[in-house]
Amino acid sequence: MTAKLPPGDGNPFEVITTRTAYANDWIRVFEHQVLKPDGSPGLYGVVQYRNRAVGVVPYENGRLWLVGQWRFPLGHYSWEIPEGGSPPGEDLAATARRELREETGLEAAALELILEMHLSNSVSDEYAAVFLARGLTRGEAAPEDTERLTVHDVSLDDAYELVCAGTITDAISVAAILKLMLLSRDGRL
Amino acid sequence: MTAKLPPGDGNPFEVITTRTAYANDWIRVFEHQVLKPDGSPGLYGVVQYRNRAVGVVPYENGRLWLVGQWRFPLGHYSWEIPEGGSPPGEDLAATARRELREETGLEAAALELILEMHLSNSVSDEYAAVFLARGLTRGEAAPEDTERLTVHDVSLDDAYELVCAGTITDAISVAAILKLMLLSRDGRL
Repeated sequence: MTAKLPPGDGNPFEVITTRTAYANDWIRVFEHQVLKPDGSPGLYGVVQYRNRAVGVVPYENGRLWLVGQWRFPLGHYSWEIPEGGSPPGEDLAATARRELREETGLEAAALELILEMHLSNSVSDEYAAVFLARGLTRGEAAPEDTERLTVHDVSLDDAYELVCAGTITDAISVAAILKLMLLSRDGRL
Repeated sequence: MTAKLPPGDGNPFEVITTRTAYANDWIRVFEHQVLKPDGSPGLYGVVQYRNRAVGVVPYENGRLWLVGQWRFPLGHYSWEIPEGGSPPGEDLAATARRELREETGLEAAALELILEMHLSNSVSDEYAAVFLARGLTRGEAAPEDTERLTVHDVSLDDAYELVCAGTITDAISVAAILKLMLLSRDGRL
């Protein structure tokens, strides 16, 4: 690791008051009255996620598994890598194994962390970890009651084409597939 | 385009009631009482974004420009490609040009849409478009009052290393840099 970036400045915002505007089992919304970097008063709404997001790409012989489901906030169907929420205190790799098993029935001999992201950092603190899962064996899927899932395997090349065409749009899946393409090009898959 | 995915099922959720739980100039939070896919009652909180997110990578001769700023929701500094919000009715490419100019002072002769994403589709409807900006000329940066920005150029290879190391974590930036690496490998940059 040789690449470096300049050190960042400190926090230019001053928080005057904070109130909880909304909370459910998944998110909390805080409204902060702040002084902005230029010193003028402003308001900052922040969506805090209780769970960290975990994505896991099951990969074997040039193919990967996608999961299709209706995404309620979007109002349409979406094909994605297996994903789920990691509650506070749960090991991220344990979440990856659990979600992989629940959504696809696959068990992985090896997991590798391939990406870490913040999904929408102007408004939320949501963190996502993406794992590559290899050494796969088949079991039985057992989705949660909020999920109605379809599992489908595609070639990595087709997955990349579907990302470039704007068919696969889920950010975790897009980044995971792009990273896998680069690992593949570098002979690391 | 030959890659295809199976057609998706319809909406398995039934909405019983909806209330607006929170709203500010950037987001609205809706709480829906629903019947889940298994028919049991549940609650779905959805964060709706007023603007679409736009990212734009200024690229020239193997280098790109990053913008550093304090991200209030994360509580830390973050290096990212230039990004901003596209209000309803504004052309996405126009937003890209504006944000590029405001944040870096650069003007682009050519913009190419290279990715479309939904950033956090289990909770929000936030859409992001990513543009590649080329044919760059220099002007004067003029950041908004909520922003205190630093501009820094890095090689594409270093940017990729910083993504892989978990130093650059902003999802739009991560996906943009990975896509640029693939375009570069394919001789398309």
